[in-house]
Amino acid sequence: MATGEISLDAPLLLAQIQTLGAIGHDPHQGGRTRVALTDEEKAGRDQLVQWMRELALDVRVDRVGNILGILHAESAEGDAHPLMMGSHIDTVRNAGALDGCYGVLAGLAVVRAYRKQGIQPRRAIIVAAFTNEEGVRFQPDMMGSLVYAAGLPVQTALDTIGNDGARLGDELARIGYAGDMEPGSIIPNEYIELHIEQGPILEAEGKQIGVVEDLQGISWQKVSIQGVANHAGTTPTRLRHDAGYAAAACIAYLREEVVGASLDTTLATTGSLRLEPDVINVIPRKATFTVDLRDPDEQRLQSAERSFAAFLTEIAEREGVKVETEGLVRFEPVVFDRRIAERIEAAATRRGLSHMRMTSGAGHDAQMMARIAPAAMIFVPSRGGISHNPREHTDDVQLVLGAQILLDVVQDCMAAD
Amino acid sequence: MATGEISLDAPLLLAQIQTLGAIGHDPHQGGRTRVALTDEEKAGRDQLVQWMRELALDVRVDRVGNILGILHAESAEGDAHPLMMGSHIDTVRNAGALDGCYGVLAGLAVVRAYRKQGIQPRRAIIVAAFTNEEGVRFQPDMMGSLVYAAGLPVQTALDTIGNDGARLGDELARIGYAGDMEPGSIIPNEYIELHIEQGPILEAEGKQIGVVEDLQGISWQKVSIQGVANHAGTTPTRLRHDAGYAAAACIAYLREEVVGASLDTTLATTGSLRLEPDVINVIPRKATFTVDLRDPDEQRLQSAERSFAAFLTEIAEREGVKVETEGLVRFEPVVFDRRIAERIEAAATRRGLSHMRMTSGAGHDAQMMARIAPAAMIFVPSRGGISHNPREHTDDVQLVLGAQILLDVVQDCMAAD
Repeated sequence: MATGEISLDAPLLLAQIQTLGAIGHDPHQGGRTRVALTDEEKAGRDQLVQWMRELALDVRVDRVGNILGILHAESAEGDAHPLMMGSHIDTVRNAGALDGCYGVLAGLAVVRAYRKQGIQPRRAIIVAAFTNEEGVRFQPDMMGSLVYAAGLPVQTALDTIGNDGARLGDELARIGYAGDMEPGSIIPNEYIELHIEQGPILEAEGKQIGVVEDLQGISWQKVSIQGVANHAGTTPTRLRHDAGYAAAACIAYLREEVVGASLDTTLATTGSLRLEPDVINVIPRKATFTVDLRDPDEQRLQSAERSFAAFLTEIAEREGVKVETEGLVRFEPVVFDRRIAERIEAAATRRGLSHMRMTSGAGHDAQMMARIAPAAMIFVPSRGGISHNPREHTDDVQLVLGAQILLDVVQDCMAAD
Repeated sequence: MATGEISLDAPLLLAQIQTLGAIGHDPHQGGRTRVALTDEEKAGRDQLVQWMRELALDVRVDRVGNILGILHAESAEGDAHPLMMGSHIDTVRNAGALDGCYGVLAGLAVVRAYRKQGIQPRRAIIVAAFTNEEGVRFQPDMMGSLVYAAGLPVQTALDTIGNDGARLGDELARIGYAGDMEPGSIIPNEYIELHIEQGPILEAEGKQIGVVEDLQGISWQKVSIQGVANHAGTTPTRLRHDAGYAAAACIAYLREEVVGASLDTTLATTGSLRLEPDVINVIPRKATFTVDLRDPDEQRLQSAERSFAAFLTEIAEREGVKVETEGLVRFEPVVFDRRIAERIEAAATRRGLSHMRMTSGAGHDAQMMARIAPAAMIFVPSRGGISHNPREHTDDVQLVLGAQILLDVVQDCMAAD
């Protein structure tokens, strides 16, 4: 097998990104919305499956709706040791066109390159699109790959109730993607995910390719502070139990103390906050907010969690409020496979592309797949670091170069075994 | 005129408070909602006017919907120097039964006491119910009394657009309360408002009657902070423009620095706060929140405003966010009439009631009427300091005692002139 003969159809890859990105598109807002297991996402799935069938892939759908397109190997032995590429095609609301979709469609482009040359690979090559990576409607996020990697029982996933009250299993059946394959029944030899960075680092450093070494641990919690609603003009400060102020003090503490103490390796974000009754002249009775903590080091992440928990205890006592926390998501940091990372690096060097080792700040299906297979990620730059937004952008040339590196690494993996 | 002969019908006053409180009542939530110029508030107005007519009062409605019930004097000279009692009957959402209504119905009880004895007063006695004191639907609050005191042109008030898009003048006409009397065309010799405290001080101090000396200045503003939405996991802290953190820092500053610097005379409250896009793993693009500052001293109130404005400038620079403020309400502190306050004090002393001088923390129609007449307020305790809430409560005996002091002071004012 001469690897030089296999080449990427760049225009078709870019065209497919556009076509998929038009499904669920909102011309007013500029983005597209294909939240997991909605009609719009079903349309995206149907398009993907059609493209897989055009490549004569063996399309399988597992019980949690993960879609696998298999390019079989020349031998049964080769079929038993597949290489998997993957990502997701569900989106947040009003999303860009690249997050997830790029990795799946670049995977198809790699398979297409083999098909076009009429080459049957020594080992099977699988393109996977995992269910509900974004976690907008059903929690947790990265659900399909988590189930695939046996981190969540299938039945639990199917019984998940979404924000809109729908049951995940019912929605899967409704859109026709409740498959019968058991998740995880095909364990790949390696898993490789190509993704836009969704952060500003590659752009800031002027690098073309990110070789992802590890992925931050993530700790999500919801904090509810119960105070006492009272008149803003008549309640002396010393008699207040102001849930809104207590929440603000927590958010300030996270930035000023928790992040500071970590020498900036810990990231802390409060993205969502609601006050009740939310009236200008009423001291808030209740504040509910989210805390997103991340760190590539598990010890530092735990230290951030402990520091924040101690502050919650302190503020509860100081302000006479009641604090409750609910853990939403907790993933330890993931270290990716060193050997595949070296292959990515070597491929970028051979092509003369600038590259750097980096940590993934976002969660990805690769972190779940790392539980059952050597896993790796390749990043391309995101303009302005912007993602989850219609302004998400990566230049076409960079998208093509990223896919080329993916193809190179796949060929390298095929050749090595 | 023997003042001893005039006596209050306490059971009827309490019954009318109940009857009015049943209009707009929501059995599920426990409170009542008669937001200004809604169908429910019209029903409250109709009930009040019916009671005024039962007392054979001369009912007038002015162009902004203020309702005046006039008990004419024995002479034209006495009619030209009326005493006015008043408050309001509109409510916040899910309100208690006492805020405002108590003062209006106690005014009726005073007039009723005169009527029952068949006594025509030496000077006219007017009971006023001012339009839109609460400011829930149409801003500013205390609108009817503000217009009456020439602080806002009638036409501006009529052209006010509510939160629901309705025009105030149209709503007044719709419910049949667009009167033809010019607001402020009857200037009273004195204005007296009986009200529940809506704060915890009388209860905490164990006093039955509050002699309100002054009323805090109020400064309301809306602050909008524009940052940049970005991924919570991939954006290093130094590259963030986090509108949510900036808002939290402002709220913490208000409590920890502004209130602290005033030695606790300044009150600062953020009752309303919204983040956009309000998603757990997205750094907030925008934060919008309200700031309610109050102080009985104008200089200290201005100092609080300046300190906060300086912090906004600082946080805008430090976090790279854009800050805009919009003034919503600004009232200077009001000093009530010393002579009437002394009469209230004397009346309480004569009845053997415990009493104290105090500052009103809440805004009241009396602060507007103080612009055109010597004004005074009498407070009775609020259990737990709770108001704007179905749990708002004052014991019946305290309600009756407050009305008795009002009657005593009215008689005293009549006798003195």
